[in-house]
Amino acid sequence: MKFAKRNDYIEVSEIREILKVTEKPEIISFAGGLPAPELFPVEEIKTVCQEVLRTNSQSALQYSTTEGYVPLREAICKRMKNQGIDTKVEDIMITSGSQQGLDLSGKVFIDKDDVIICESPTYLAAIKAFKTYLPNFKEVPMDESGMIMEELEKVLKETPNAKFIYTIPDFQNPTGRTMSLSRRKKLVDLANKYDIAVIEDNPYGEVRFAGESIPPVKSFDTEGRVIYLSTFSKIFCPGFRIGWMCASETLMKKYVPFKQSTDLHSDIFAQMVTAKYMELFNIDDHIEKIKATYRHRRELMIECIQKEFPDGTKHTLPEGGLFMWVELPKGIKAKEVFQVALEKNVAFVPGDSFFPNGGCENTFRLNYSNMPDERIVEGIRRLGMVLKSFIK
Amino acid sequence: MKFAKRNDYIEVSEIREILKVTEKPEIISFAGGLPAPELFPVEEIKTVCQEVLRTNSQSALQYSTTEGYVPLREAICKRMKNQGIDTKVEDIMITSGSQQGLDLSGKVFIDKDDVIICESPTYLAAIKAFKTYLPNFKEVPMDESGMIMEELEKVLKETPNAKFIYTIPDFQNPTGRTMSLSRRKKLVDLANKYDIAVIEDNPYGEVRFAGESIPPVKSFDTEGRVIYLSTFSKIFCPGFRIGWMCASETLMKKYVPFKQSTDLHSDIFAQMVTAKYMELFNIDDHIEKIKATYRHRRELMIECIQKEFPDGTKHTLPEGGLFMWVELPKGIKAKEVFQVALEKNVAFVPGDSFFPNGGCENTFRLNYSNMPDERIVEGIRRLGMVLKSFIK
Repeated sequence: MKFAKRNDYIEVSEIREILKVTEKPEIISFAGGLPAPELFPVEEIKTVCQEVLRTNSQSALQYSTTEGYVPLREAICKRMKNQGIDTKVEDIMITSGSQQGLDLSGKVFIDKDDVIICESPTYLAAIKAFKTYLPNFKEVPMDESGMIMEELEKVLKETPNAKFIYTIPDFQNPTGRTMSLSRRKKLVDLANKYDIAVIEDNPYGEVRFAGESIPPVKSFDTEGRVIYLSTFSKIFCPGFRIGWMCASETLMKKYVPFKQSTDLHSDIFAQMVTAKYMELFNIDDHIEKIKATYRHRRELMIECIQKEFPDGTKHTLPEGGLFMWVELPKGIKAKEVFQVALEKNVAFVPGDSFFPNGGCENTFRLNYSNMPDERIVEGIRRLGMVLKSFIK
Repeated sequence: MKFAKRNDYIEVSEIREILKVTEKPEIISFAGGLPAPELFPVEEIKTVCQEVLRTNSQSALQYSTTEGYVPLREAICKRMKNQGIDTKVEDIMITSGSQQGLDLSGKVFIDKDDVIICESPTYLAAIKAFKTYLPNFKEVPMDESGMIMEELEKVLKETPNAKFIYTIPDFQNPTGRTMSLSRRKKLVDLANKYDIAVIEDNPYGEVRFAGESIPPVKSFDTEGRVIYLSTFSKIFCPGFRIGWMCASETLMKKYVPFKQSTDLHSDIFAQMVTAKYMELFNIDDHIEKIKATYRHRRELMIECIQKEFPDGTKHTLPEGGLFMWVELPKGIKAKEVFQVALEKNVAFVPGDSFFPNGGCENTFRLNYSNMPDERIVEGIRRLGMVLKSFIK
């Protein structure tokens, strides 16, 4: 049998393999990107499931439209307007997690050997999703205020045929960094100037627990070239795989047929449950609980890091989201640290997989949303000891 | 902005567009492929949703593994063994409908300009899913016993680098035809001889209401080259989008990373609900109800066709599934018939879209699973009148 060439560029995700190792209950894992499951609104979901099946069972269990359940798209529209994005129901499509928005973007935009532009580092599973369509990646360096616009313009000048700029402006995965307001505006200016699409991936934006909210890049989009992706995974629950995309009519016409041929539509029962939840309960109150928990865990983790990690390590100070980024002195390999840490039953994700073209082996990602206090304290203590054995 | 070349080959599905027109309640539609919604086991699903949330809420709402929920895969394994397929849990992966199995097959196998082989005609949304990866289609003629093996071998000889053979052996969409036992064995022999993969798409196999069951092509697979796709859409409900694939370890290793980058995993709550339903209730009893209804509707439709359609029309005699295929005298265009039928508020799908390379405009597909008796009688009566105005 013969397979497609793309198989050579895709292998089982390193994170997934790491997660498998770290599933053992004795391991304190800062590796995954899991929300705190004790916060899932289980009783409310029980009520909502019954209500959907009581009032609307035949539609909830039947085939449905590719674009998604209209009342859910209306509720999303309203939330997006609150964030400064002036949109309409027709510009919203429900996706199977925001991950599917990435795969569909690959389908819509990427031909073999095309260039796509992303932050350095960037979300691992976005790299995998795009690699399916065989592009080359140009990475744009970041600082604490996100992608550096001068560097972006350099890349745009060098590669006039680049297909899109991929960015996670809020509490980026993996770094936890947030793009500044002025850079968001500049990003749209540059996209207009160089006639290129922007994919704004925003799964964490509503989980801000410090600092001031900054409007999404999409809110500055004057020419309908920003594709906005988001999800209920971090503000409700990920199990249902309900995400969405927001894009102009011209772009949506490209996306819908590919969504259709990929899975016809996303689980309509889960769509109705999500819509009904927002109708019967206050999701904003629920998000406040999530923020309070993550704020606390993030503060505790930073406190522990400052106490336990040796001099020479640096880390980011996220104002929201689930992740923090650690930089070790040059020459120290996070993968080797990982192996020793695993012997001490503590885990994280080595950073090099977040660079599409490799490198930066002295970095790693920490997740703080999924572990209770005592495990954060103990895990960072152990990790500090391991790091001290590497950094003399 | 610049888009990928594949956009030129994909447009909004004709069926979807037709379904939109036919959503009006006054239209008697034989166009869609919808199961009978009045048969969905709503009360049982209510019980099962509560049970899953009562016993297992945190896992049901959290991220999960790409391969799928193990108890569901075990239950599927058992059902497949009953059909003569000797398999194990590791060879089963849950997909977002069997439609996703088609998209993933495109990812695993197809490079631009590769040849893939299919029945003529074949499932419209499979054509769309594969076209995303820019192959050429070689169509193999069928007769009442399915794909003609001599014709298949001719194609295999002509195209030594073809990537896979795509077949729907049971109650094929769109024709309703079933591949004979001897041809299934011959298909595996030919696949072995020409070292090619086979994708067996079997969404309808368990909905046989006449004749004797024939083991799946996969049950004759001696070299691990048949990828078997199926779904709960026709035997439980389609809304949850729970399908599965069964393939050898070598093949599964190729599929899993693409599933991962496409949507991480399928709705885990829906997976658990499906598994719990099979644990607490007897799905085979439920399938018997579906079969009885579809058998009745199919018989009624044939009876009406024989009474109402003019001489010169031919139709298939499906022993299961949801569809029947009608052939009009050469020269009569089903699309023109469709326009007139729509004025009489009756709809079907013109057949030419089911041929990847076009042609056969004198054919159309009828669905009999979704309409109650009186609408079948009235719809076929009206359609008969329309046909009589075309066939003098």
